[in-house]
Amino acid sequence: MTRLYAAVDLGGTNTSCGLGYEDGTLLCERTDPTYSHEGPDAVLERIASVLKDLASASGQQPSGLGIGVPGLVDRATGSTVFLPNLATQWRNVPVGEILCSRLGCPVYVLNDVRTATLGELTYGAGTNTGWLVFFSLGTGIGGGVVMDGKLRLGPLGAAGELGHMTVLPDGALCGCGNRGCLETLASGPAIASEGVRLLRSGLAPHLHDLVGGRAEYVTPKEMKEAAEAGDRPIHTALTRAASYLGIAVSNVIVTLHPELIVLGGGVSRLGSILIDTVKATVRERVTMLPVDSVRIEQSVLGDKAGLYGAIALAMRCGRV
Amino acid sequence: MTRLYAAVDLGGTNTSCGLGYEDGTLLCERTDPTYSHEGPDAVLERIASVLKDLASASGQQPSGLGIGVPGLVDRATGSTVFLPNLATQWRNVPVGEILCSRLGCPVYVLNDVRTATLGELTYGAGTNTGWLVFFSLGTGIGGGVVMDGKLRLGPLGAAGELGHMTVLPDGALCGCGNRGCLETLASGPAIASEGVRLLRSGLAPHLHDLVGGRAEYVTPKEMKEAAEAGDRPIHTALTRAASYLGIAVSNVIVTLHPELIVLGGGVSRLGSILIDTVKATVRERVTMLPVDSVRIEQSVLGDKAGLYGAIALAMRCGRV
Repeated sequence: MTRLYAAVDLGGTNTSCGLGYEDGTLLCERTDPTYSHEGPDAVLERIASVLKDLASASGQQPSGLGIGVPGLVDRATGSTVFLPNLATQWRNVPVGEILCSRLGCPVYVLNDVRTATLGELTYGAGTNTGWLVFFSLGTGIGGGVVMDGKLRLGPLGAAGELGHMTVLPDGALCGCGNRGCLETLASGPAIASEGVRLLRSGLAPHLHDLVGGRAEYVTPKEMKEAAEAGDRPIHTALTRAASYLGIAVSNVIVTLHPELIVLGGGVSRLGSILIDTVKATVRERVTMLPVDSVRIEQSVLGDKAGLYGAIALAMRCGRV
Repeated sequence: MTRLYAAVDLGGTNTSCGLGYEDGTLLCERTDPTYSHEGPDAVLERIASVLKDLASASGQQPSGLGIGVPGLVDRATGSTVFLPNLATQWRNVPVGEILCSRLGCPVYVLNDVRTATLGELTYGAGTNTGWLVFFSLGTGIGGGVVMDGKLRLGPLGAAGELGHMTVLPDGALCGCGNRGCLETLASGPAIASEGVRLLRSGLAPHLHDLVGGRAEYVTPKEMKEAAEAGDRPIHTALTRAASYLGIAVSNVIVTLHPELIVLGGGVSRLGSILIDTVKATVRERVTMLPVDSVRIEQSVLGDKAGLYGAIALAMRCGRV
């Protein structure tokens, strides 16, 4: 009989819990707000409770739990080092120990984007390759590097911080303290801020109609619709962001020559306007090796890459 | 008894041949012009002849030969794909087969900079780590990526083309066809061209004296001397080039978090003005992980990294 695993994708806003089999069948899942202001104990208690409910409803006990968390973790102990996007920042929280004692199964903890990378490798776009680089394009930009079938985490699990590659040496200040990081140019907020500027400059009438003139409703999704409806400046803003992403992708390709680049996260739902521009930029900038040897694809697991990755993490007993 | 290996570093200008033991003792070596205009057969015949002379003088036969060549190779067959810097470009030359038949020992062929990376890993700055990235800073800029003790070559041996990372999106045209490659900003010719500009603008009196006013004598070495003698604009040009290198190094660090970055090639002889600026740039730009966990060092093997790497390549029977 195929084994059942528990999976958690802990995010700054929402947390998803699920159960799945090692073949990648997701048996059930549930997404709730994280309520991170209540602190680690309450958040982890809620996760344990949801997982117990799911296990009880399924009539099966999971063999292990994988959990992706938004920040740095000490994989040896299963404790957080620092989760910057949660209200209390979760320094040195023994996530593995707490959930293990509540659930009675082994618990494996990993950075959320590296977990999603493992999901794409095991069940998603990367199932036919051992050489892939994943870009997660959301509120922030993260990533994961897989070489020779293994996730390459570096000594602190921090390898793959692709959002903090410098793309514009004199660019805008990033939250990390550097200037011109990819995240300042191609994250959801970076793209939306340019949409807001164009909206307020009167250069985006379709976007204006779509959001009723309200800047707070501008996201890359509305910008895509506005561009398709005819707002040329919005179209230009989107392709400009995609070109900067294309530079980061090109730099990864000349450095590592992976077989596959996977674009995931909310911004990847821009679809062809994003991916076609990235491909065109790579064709223009990478001349040292045949670019056709590198596939560039949209994530197939989408929002669920983290949950699938957590199943893979548990299945591999944390050995990634 | 320790085994003896033959080593060749084939360059566009000069070719070095040597014999060495697996412990990294270089028994003998000889460097001659490559005479690449004479074509592959003559160049390889000369290499075979030099190696035979060296073996004969040493009274020992090498167990294998490693050779680094400036371009892409098909490692399975030991043939060149394309060596752009040699006069006849060496397309599909069966280097391994030809040298094997002349010398009667197994021959292993690899890109020259990847071979030098292997040298630093095995006998140089990287002997205590399995995670290093090598930047070879010369007429061109190349590199090599070692993760988990293995050289990561990609499917075509082209991984590690660090000179063709885009550092300035709208920068100068590179020989590769892209714009703003690291090579356009921090290679020997890139640095020297800025020295020539300053010389001709009358902004570098010390440099003018050092080269007798002759632009063709300006190299990074003379620029270093001029900067030390008091030419501030030259000092600025050198630190500016080093800052761009620092951006490329920072991008590699956030992507891979290696333990060690090694700077080699002729430009690395700039010494502290280069390496201190690279370190300062990395401290400024890399905030996602503790930069003190990444050592940044000058090559210890210098010009001989390629020859040492060729010994290591032969010793490993090509399994890198």
